[in-house]
Amino acid sequence: MEEKFKQLSEKLAELSDLVYASAVLGWDQQVYMPPAGAEERGNQLGTLARIIQEKATAPELGKLLEDLMPYAESLDPDSDEARIIKVNRKDFDKATRVPPEHVEKFAQVTTMAQQVWMEARQKSDFSLFQPHLEKVLELRREYITFFPDVEHPYDALLDDFEPGMKTSEVKAIFEGLRPKQVELIRAIAGKPQVDDSFLHQPFDEKKQWDFGTEVITKFGYDWNRGRQDKTAHPFTTDFGVNDVRITTRVAPDFLNTMLFGTMHECGHALYGLGVAPGLERTGLAAGASLAVHESQSRMWENLVGRSLPFWQHFYPRLKETFPQLAGVPLEKFYKGINKVQPSFIRVEADEATYNLHIMLRMEIEIALMEDKLAANDLPEYWNTKMQEYLGVTPADDAKGVLQDVHWSGGMIGYFSTYALGNLISAQLWEKILQDLPDLSDQIRAGKFNTLLGWLREKIHRHGRKFEPQELVQKVTGSRIDPAPYVRYLTKKYSEIYGL
Amino acid sequence: MEEKFKQLSEKLAELSDLVYASAVLGWDQQVYMPPAGAEERGNQLGTLARIIQEKATAPELGKLLEDLMPYAESLDPDSDEARIIKVNRKDFDKATRVPPEHVEKFAQVTTMAQQVWMEARQKSDFSLFQPHLEKVLELRREYITFFPDVEHPYDALLDDFEPGMKTSEVKAIFEGLRPKQVELIRAIAGKPQVDDSFLHQPFDEKKQWDFGTEVITKFGYDWNRGRQDKTAHPFTTDFGVNDVRITTRVAPDFLNTMLFGTMHECGHALYGLGVAPGLERTGLAAGASLAVHESQSRMWENLVGRSLPFWQHFYPRLKETFPQLAGVPLEKFYKGINKVQPSFIRVEADEATYNLHIMLRMEIEIALMEDKLAANDLPEYWNTKMQEYLGVTPADDAKGVLQDVHWSGGMIGYFSTYALGNLISAQLWEKILQDLPDLSDQIRAGKFNTLLGWLREKIHRHGRKFEPQELVQKVTGSRIDPAPYVRYLTKKYSEIYGL
Repeated sequence: MEEKFKQLSEKLAELSDLVYASAVLGWDQQVYMPPAGAEERGNQLGTLARIIQEKATAPELGKLLEDLMPYAESLDPDSDEARIIKVNRKDFDKATRVPPEHVEKFAQVTTMAQQVWMEARQKSDFSLFQPHLEKVLELRREYITFFPDVEHPYDALLDDFEPGMKTSEVKAIFEGLRPKQVELIRAIAGKPQVDDSFLHQPFDEKKQWDFGTEVITKFGYDWNRGRQDKTAHPFTTDFGVNDVRITTRVAPDFLNTMLFGTMHECGHALYGLGVAPGLERTGLAAGASLAVHESQSRMWENLVGRSLPFWQHFYPRLKETFPQLAGVPLEKFYKGINKVQPSFIRVEADEATYNLHIMLRMEIEIALMEDKLAANDLPEYWNTKMQEYLGVTPADDAKGVLQDVHWSGGMIGYFSTYALGNLISAQLWEKILQDLPDLSDQIRAGKFNTLLGWLREKIHRHGRKFEPQELVQKVTGSRIDPAPYVRYLTKKYSEIYGL
Repeated sequence: MEEKFKQLSEKLAELSDLVYASAVLGWDQQVYMPPAGAEERGNQLGTLARIIQEKATAPELGKLLEDLMPYAESLDPDSDEARIIKVNRKDFDKATRVPPEHVEKFAQVTTMAQQVWMEARQKSDFSLFQPHLEKVLELRREYITFFPDVEHPYDALLDDFEPGMKTSEVKAIFEGLRPKQVELIRAIAGKPQVDDSFLHQPFDEKKQWDFGTEVITKFGYDWNRGRQDKTAHPFTTDFGVNDVRITTRVAPDFLNTMLFGTMHECGHALYGLGVAPGLERTGLAAGASLAVHESQSRMWENLVGRSLPFWQHFYPRLKETFPQLAGVPLEKFYKGINKVQPSFIRVEADEATYNLHIMLRMEIEIALMEDKLAANDLPEYWNTKMQEYLGVTPADDAKGVLQDVHWSGGMIGYFSTYALGNLISAQLWEKILQDLPDLSDQIRAGKFNTLLGWLREKIHRHGRKFEPQELVQKVTGSRIDPAPYVRYLTKKYSEIYGL
């Protein structure tokens, strides 16, 4: 079996190298590629994707995994070897269920849909996008048919982002959460509003960049194993466990964009950099799921970066950097960066309203997949729900149903991971505070190493070994639970708004 | 046959995409990769190289090329299709003659030799490097045995860089050239020397960068299809015919490094950007040979960039940029950038002495391959020849036999391409001046578009369709000839040094 495991490892290493190579090409495409290089880059990425798909579904790989299953069963179920075999077997099974023609057609349809979506959003005209969205939805429904054993059709989509997660679970979590979030926002709306006008003024871009760099260096981001570049749409990307890069953007007259964006991406990067070396080139050197990944980025961005102790440490440095903040006391600054204001745009939403944007999207996705909602009813449905949850109605489709790229790319089932990430971050945080009772003092002193050490030990090093629910259960003693997040929001905003 | 040609095109496109993907990873490695990413990047490049090798030697590709040969013979021999088939057939034949075990061993031995070379150069100790060089030479001799039909053993190595070129031809060219270059340098040495001290003073790096950018923008470098980044060892790299990037370095207190380095790399890039779209993804979208490539970089660097008309246009801008040059008249500046001074280091050599550095290396390589020289005699042989050709003796091996990376990487047969490139540049230039008699006036007016148009038409668009001698013959009416270069040097330096 050792010989077979070695053969498997070689195949997985090759696959992993190709996936990383694609990631390098993708990073360059978004960060440095000259505009005219796009078509050729598309060819290169397409060729790599085809080779990856061939190798990921090769019968010899399937045979090896099949042969190794009894061996995996004989091992400690939590050992690296057992998990490498089992996780890859599931990946192989999923990949081989989908016919190559479907994969190709999906790539074509979504490439076109993304182009049209950009135009439709620019013109704020949903009718342009609708026929393309319908094609995407049709293909997603076809995709679901390749997994006839799912409990709910949406499970097949969800599993690509949250392995093992069921629609029924997510629904239950969100149904418990929604009324509490709606209630909290209404309570906040009844109180005097917070002033954050000082965040909206010119801030030197180079100084912003340097401040962000200083913060994430203190978080423990290792510049020997990563780097930061500018991009239009920030993201984090892994080229191995020793080269995990972040990208950020800087707004010339709004501080939050760089500030919280950089901390957010750093949270993702610390996860990638913390994966155990033993999982390198096995297909398991990645996050457990998108939600667990998001729990890390949101933790550093919000639980740490939007906390009072954090600013007790960093605010003097920030004022030194930006003298225009001289007249803004710490408490006012802290309230400003935590201002709650129902708005149309998800990516600009605050912590209190964010999850409601997500729930709206997920309800729509499930209704679409259950054939209970038609694409042409989307704009109206969207606006009605926005009014119900957030008390606002978008002026046009660009600020409403057309705002996100996800559906045009066929990413249905993705949104919920953002909200689940928030929940997991608060759930982990309660556990962390039990284990590290003086964490606030450490943060107030600009020390993040024990926090990072905890996350590495409990979360990062495991990579993709465990499914998200399994991992959360292992670490916190219970499955994903919205209660800690509600407690966190209620406490924080009660103090800020005097609820 | 059309169906078979289509099949061939698909295979060639796939291969080309993978080669470009490797190039992107290589560029990133040298330009932006964080240090700790090196090992994983090595894995990724190794995997890509193995897949490229597999596909480049796949029997189905060979069969297709074989089947298409009669078709190629039936076409216009200069047509794209005919050349695509023939050039790829030659590539396939060469690739399949070399056993995969040799390729792998060569990669291992040269990786190690490069590491040891770096240490040996640092310590200026040839004895450290010698055993590794011997292994490299042994493998190069083994490589030659895979091509038993060559006229001279060195031909097998030369052909990898200069397709179709024979050792006897290169020897004949250089033997005609050497005495004339040695004579010229002696004549210059007898004259009052030129002052270039004003080039060695602090120059703001950002301003240098911007000036270089301005120059190559005027040359016609298209920023929509390329970009420039900083690196330790400047190079140009192609990711397709619409994404050709240059890299440069800036010395804080010596102007020439950025100035001529940027123009040199731009010359390479203009070649890559000028390849006809019809050759895209066929394996022919590249230079005819290293020498022809070098003829382009040297032309923009020297024939254009070190000419008096060029500085008649740009010197006012340069003085505006760097007021420290205010007291240096144009003629003094022109002489300064063309100063001749025999030195130890090839990459720092001027136009008059450069080729002698090359001839020395090529004589050594041929003697090594003919078993007329042993590795342990190299340092002494090197120093003797340096004295004979240039009248200087390096103080140590770091400034002598250990200065270049090429041999540690197994690149034997490469050096001559630098000198041949110089010769071709002057040979083309004589032809260009016949076709564009007012070129000097155009350059004096900062106009480069007719020059670039000529190069695109005569050289660039053909890509790898023609072998170097064939291309030079087509364009100038004769094969590679050192006479124009000797005429160029003699005329230029007679004026500068009053010979």
